[in-house]
Amino acid sequence: MNDAIITVLTDFGYMDPYVGIMKGVMAKINPKAKIIDISHDVPSFSIKHAAFSLFSYYRYFPDHTVHLVVVDPGVGSKRKAIVTKIDKRYFVLPDNGVISYVWENEKGKDKKVFNIENEKYFLHPVSNTFHGRDIFAPIAAHISRNIGIEEFGKELEDPVLFPFPKPYIKDNILHGEVIYIDKFGTVVTNIKRDLLDGKELFCAEIKTHRICNFANYYGEYKEREEFMIFGSSNFLELSINRGSFSKKLKVNIGDEVKVIFQIL
Amino acid sequence: MNDAIITVLTDFGYMDPYVGIMKGVMAKINPKAKIIDISHDVPSFSIKHAAFSLFSYYRYFPDHTVHLVVVDPGVGSKRKAIVTKIDKRYFVLPDNGVISYVWENEKGKDKKVFNIENEKYFLHPVSNTFHGRDIFAPIAAHISRNIGIEEFGKELEDPVLFPFPKPYIKDNILHGEVIYIDKFGTVVTNIKRDLLDGKELFCAEIKTHRICNFANYYGEYKEREEFMIFGSSNFLELSINRGSFSKKLKVNIGDEVKVIFQIL
Amino acid sequence: MNDAIITVLTDFGYMDPYVGIMKGVMAKINPKAKIIDISHDVPSFSIKHAAFSLFSYYRYFPDHTVHLVVVDPGVGSKRKAIVTKIDKRYFVLPDNGVISYVWENEKGKDKKVFNIENEKYFLHPVSNTFHGRDIFAPIAAHISRNIGIEEFGKELEDPVLFPFPKPYIKDNILHGEVIYIDKFGTVVTNIKRDLLDGKELFCAEIKTHRICNFANYYGEYKEREEFMIFGSSNFLELSINRGSFSKKLKVNIGDEVKVIFQIL
Repeated sequence: MNDAIITVLTDFGYMDPYVGIMKGVMAKINPKAKIIDISHDVPSFSIKHAAFSLFSYYRYFPDHTVHLVVVDPGVGSKRKAIVTKIDKRYFVLPDNGVISYVWENEKGKDKKVFNIENEKYFLHPVSNTFHGRDIFAPIAAHISRNIGIEEFGKELEDPVLFPFPKPYIKDNILHGEVIYIDKFGTVVTNIKRDLLDGKELFCAEIKTHRICNFANYYGEYKEREEFMIFGSSNFLELSINRGSFSKKLKVNIGDEVKVIFQIL
Repeated sequence: MNDAIITVLTDFGYMDPYVGIMKGVMAKINPKAKIIDISHDVPSFSIKHAAFSLFSYYRYFPDHTVHLVVVDPGVGSKRKAIVTKIDKRYFVLPDNGVISYVWENEKGKDKKVFNIENEKYFLHPVSNTFHGRDIFAPIAAHISRNIGIEEFGKELEDPVLFPFPKPYIKDNILHGEVIYIDKFGTVVTNIKRDLLDGKELFCAEIKTHRICNFANYYGEYKEREEFMIFGSSNFLELSINRGSFSKKLKVNIGDEVKVIFQIL
Repeated sequence: MNDAIITVLTDFGYMDPYVGIMKGVMAKINPKAKIIDISHDVPSFSIKHAAFSLFSYYRYFPDHTVHLVVVDPGVGSKRKAIVTKIDKRYFVLPDNGVISYVWENEKGKDKKVFNIENEKYFLHPVSNTFHGRDIFAPIAAHISRNIGIEEFGKELEDPVLFPFPKPYIKDNILHGEVIYIDKFGTVVTNIKRDLLDGKELFCAEIKTHRICNFANYYGEYKEREEFMIFGSSNFLELSINRGSFSKKLKVNIGDEVKVIFQIL
């Protein structure tokens, strides 16, 4: 795998040497690997943000890509480190649920999970505070060198998973929630486009605030106007043209979003 | 083009998966391409900031580099997507003026512009909200694989252009304006060094504030002292040693800067 | 050196084209070089932050890596530009002390320092404001092409060095100081693990604040609880689980940290 790609997602930020150290560790093990930064600005410790981010980008990479995620508030505790192979893709990450949305999205696909425990592949001495350097980066680099993942430890049944929140209908109201907020302040909900297919008139409600404008593209409404739109992953989003919806309404991941269908 | 370089400039920020998705799309089409991040922190929707940034870096890259810019407030609207070949360089970008300063700088050079419309080269389904993923990234990657740019659509006369603001002299005062502000708070004007050649005594005025110190290097004056300097692109800059000139004076792109010549 | 690696550390930030320009300059000189971003968010002009960062990551990279550092408040002044070879590693940087902690860490190793003065290897015209582009990036790229570093100028005795602050014991109290603060707000001290080997009961004092909890991993204490921990470089750190210790106590690099041993 001369053109092996390793993507990296962390909450280590851009100021410190931590990500650079991981890149060094990987370059030593496999100088041919292509390391691709996804983001290092996942909000600190936000496993849910990282889970949705991973779910958003993994599909776009070639087969055999190794996806390395280090958002790991439990580093040094008894949480496991795992490598998961789903179809032809590899995921190296803490066993804290960050794989959840990918797992659900790949229902029916061939999946294997191995516990990372073979210290032969670790960087020694192994610290309690930086498994990104000592465990995750070395394992990702060894996979990119074609080391079989069964080498790293014993097979596990299932990783830790949290469910993708499912929207539900009650009293003709569709109840969803916020699953992601991006840097533009666009609020992404868990409501997929197909749930609204054929519906022509609906409004979204969040925090006693109601939005009934629906846009086909971001610039359709005037500056500062609020609207709903289907985003690039086909989820219903709440947005403001050239403004931050999430800041204006102080929205957080998990906040409820209701869709109310209008009676003609 | 085994060593094909694709540079990437966006306003997508560093927190979200959007840039990572574009890298995945490009890696699938051309695994050999070298993707080089320029910046993803262009102020949201600031076409003028991106135009000056592109103008600043494109010259330093080798021939045949593909420069991809996605600062695209009009995504999904009727604005065109274009590919421009200027001399031996390629530019893939929305037709919103972001090419303007490069265009003007390359007066007299061989230039071609093609409309991007051949859906064969797009990622499907094409969204209304993320042409960076569906159109711009795929086209940049295909160019790096030596697909001729005439494949992508019909030739256009000219792209959308806004003029590089020209300084002018009136009543012995040189009138310029702010074209860029960097992270250090240094204020870059549109006044080129040659306009001041041979002048020895002059002051700059901005917002009723006057600066007459002229520095040859940033550390020449004491901390917190203001000065003029010729920056690395040979434009007159206003700066403070170890402070932010733009924050202190609340300067914005477009603000007027006057240069007053002193009578001996 | 087909797989030559050049790491880059600067305080240029992520918004501006400056780092991109340096990457272009290097790509022109050596298209085969692998450029690895460490960080461009070193606090502006903070030579000490950069020195500790460099000290933290350089060891993890393969032999022959070229480490380029441009944190250079003295650009254009009479400060020298140097290239240092330590063992099998190269460092290209301003002669402002940023190499200090690496230098001390490599006591007894083979070291050479050359003044960068051979303009044949510079990008012309050389500005007074951007030696990253005109001097440091070209030199790093030429080294990655196997140009001998004695080509660049005359050998120097020693670079500018500032001492790594040494902890000392007085009246049974260990006096140390803060050498680094990371994005999580974790405060790194200059007190190495071996100074505390065998000690079981001790407290840290900073700014009249006392911490006696000692953690083996970050998540050991409850959210918002303060603790001491040995970090990934084996220095004593002060931290808060899921909070910022440095913000809570307004800590700066250089602040005193005392370790008080408890009598049983």
